[in-house]
Amino acid sequence: MSEAAARVRTPSYADIAAAGQRLRGVAVRTPLLEAPSFNAEIGGRILIKAEVLQRTGSFKFRGAYNRISQLSPDEKQHGVIAFSSGNHAQGVAAAAQLMETTAAVVMPASTPDVKVARCRAYGAEVILHQGDRASMEARTLALAEERGLTLVPPFDDGMVIAGQGTVGAEIADQVTLLGPPPDAVLVPCGGGGLTAGIALALEARLPASRLYTVEPQGFDDTARSLKAGERLENAPGAQSICDALLVPKPGEQTFAINRRRVAEGLTVSDAAVLQAMAALFGYFKIVAEPGGAVGLAALLSGVFDGRGKTVVVVATGGNVDPQVFSEALRAAV
Amino acid sequence: MSEAAARVRTPSYADIAAAGQRLRGVAVRTPLLEAPSFNAEIGGRILIKAEVLQRTGSFKFRGAYNRISQLSPDEKQHGVIAFSSGNHAQGVAAAAQLMETTAAVVMPASTPDVKVARCRAYGAEVILHQGDRASMEARTLALAEERGLTLVPPFDDGMVIAGQGTVGAEIADQVTLLGPPPDAVLVPCGGGGLTAGIALALEARLPASRLYTVEPQGFDDTARSLKAGERLENAPGAQSICDALLVPKPGEQTFAINRRRVAEGLTVSDAAVLQAMAALFGYFKIVAEPGGAVGLAALLSGVFDGRGKTVVVVATGGNVDPQVFSEALRAAV
Repeated sequence: MSEAAARVRTPSYADIAAAGQRLRGVAVRTPLLEAPSFNAEIGGRILIKAEVLQRTGSFKFRGAYNRISQLSPDEKQHGVIAFSSGNHAQGVAAAAQLMETTAAVVMPASTPDVKVARCRAYGAEVILHQGDRASMEARTLALAEERGLTLVPPFDDGMVIAGQGTVGAEIADQVTLLGPPPDAVLVPCGGGGLTAGIALALEARLPASRLYTVEPQGFDDTARSLKAGERLENAPGAQSICDALLVPKPGEQTFAINRRRVAEGLTVSDAAVLQAMAALFGYFKIVAEPGGAVGLAALLSGVFDGRGKTVVVVATGGNVDPQVFSEALRAAV
Repeated sequence: MSEAAARVRTPSYADIAAAGQRLRGVAVRTPLLEAPSFNAEIGGRILIKAEVLQRTGSFKFRGAYNRISQLSPDEKQHGVIAFSSGNHAQGVAAAAQLMETTAAVVMPASTPDVKVARCRAYGAEVILHQGDRASMEARTLALAEERGLTLVPPFDDGMVIAGQGTVGAEIADQVTLLGPPPDAVLVPCGGGGLTAGIALALEARLPASRLYTVEPQGFDDTARSLKAGERLENAPGAQSICDALLVPKPGEQTFAINRRRVAEGLTVSDAAVLQAMAALFGYFKIVAEPGGAVGLAALLSGVFDGRGKTVVVVATGGNVDPQVFSEALRAAV
């Protein structure tokens, strides 16, 4: 099968297993953290999959590396391009450096300096863009065409989905050592790439576990799309501190997977997210960004009732400014 | 060999390996974290052993569990006692609960409520004590005698040392997968129990790696004792934010081990510690308490020159108040 075909067809669990082999020794096999005192507070067994400890500070490295590792020699010689305001850009930059190819990342002109600097530290060319997301995406596609670069999409790509799915395969490996399968897995959701990868892994490995997406209020496109049975967009003008999850609508390929497997889409407030960041600080000693904490926010706010259940919560990323983190700590006290 | 004999004799690597077996599936096998962008900043390869992710938020659980798991049936029926202002108390409380025995912990009356609450959540009886460390220790020994409880010492005990030594054994396992042995291992040092355990593990497993203790200014008893060749006390009246490391002088058994194996004792300022906490937040996404960050502070401040070296830094604990952590974040910006 050609690379192009692999990109368009829906990935299978075999693709996730193959991604796991490629990522071995390259990606961090992130721990599943448990805090008995937090369990007592919730009245259930809560297991945090700590992707904040992943290379580049988020799960995005997995999908980017899996995609870039499958470039043809010719594609590799030309290099890759991506558009992103943060985690995907860092994942692509770091993966390209490891695979000894070049990366250009198109980022909004408003991106904090520290995120631009991190991408440059991985050797990427950073192109700052004035304008909305649609114009940034269009400019990226034009640059790809012009320079002969391969686009690494943020979520709607079979090999990206398979890479993110290794999170689900690791969860399956890890919970098997701990006891009965989890009742539920809560996943922060933007475009749905991580959710789709985990959905495929659970289908193969933990079919009895129910999968839930969690989104910030105002960006509940996946929750509404799941109910409607078709992809719906977010209303314009909404705001949230969860910068990693502000995607206009579900991906085409990701939604086709997620509509089959996700039990329900949950939604949380920014206030609940700050509380969850503080709980991840106090009980689990990890740094989560707002978008990385929405899963725990669903549990803590009661949007998801964890009492009497075993629940895996994915903490997807930790790239957060000190000011925002301090705000979360103030919310906790 | 009787239990009493095991407590007094110097532990060997076999004792650490046995502790590792007991802790399997009970303690977290904490990851060795690496951030390429941080490596670039230091000009070396820096590997963080993230004991902040350990059960109870610090390495202390390892030694406490190893000791308590070796109680005789009679000792187990009566229960254990410990004195501590924080991490050791939580470690003992959690280990006693897992081993289905009872724990009493004597804590200073000034201990923050949250630390008292955590010990109680693990089922421990908390006894708040007014007075200095010496009087707290004396009261603990009197209570142990009166109630027939077994004392779990914070560091000067062969089985506690062997338990902490599992940190060193894991480091040896983990670095073997990564490349050549590390040039140096930096360990935060209070009474010296963790240092002694790691010293024994390195002697057996990584004999070419040099071991360094790191202490806060004003509490450099180990650094001065190593130079003098005898145990020296800290001058009274010193202050530091590193509450986990404020021990008056090195332990007897720990110092006998450490004087043979520690290359040098390093000392850092509180200001450097705050910077290190911020770096652990920004690059590694973990929450370290001040005493848990002194190792990285030695590297960041240049007290230890990491250029061109592979350095393992133990981040020992993450039990820190939000206010103190926010102060570290302000120091970083």
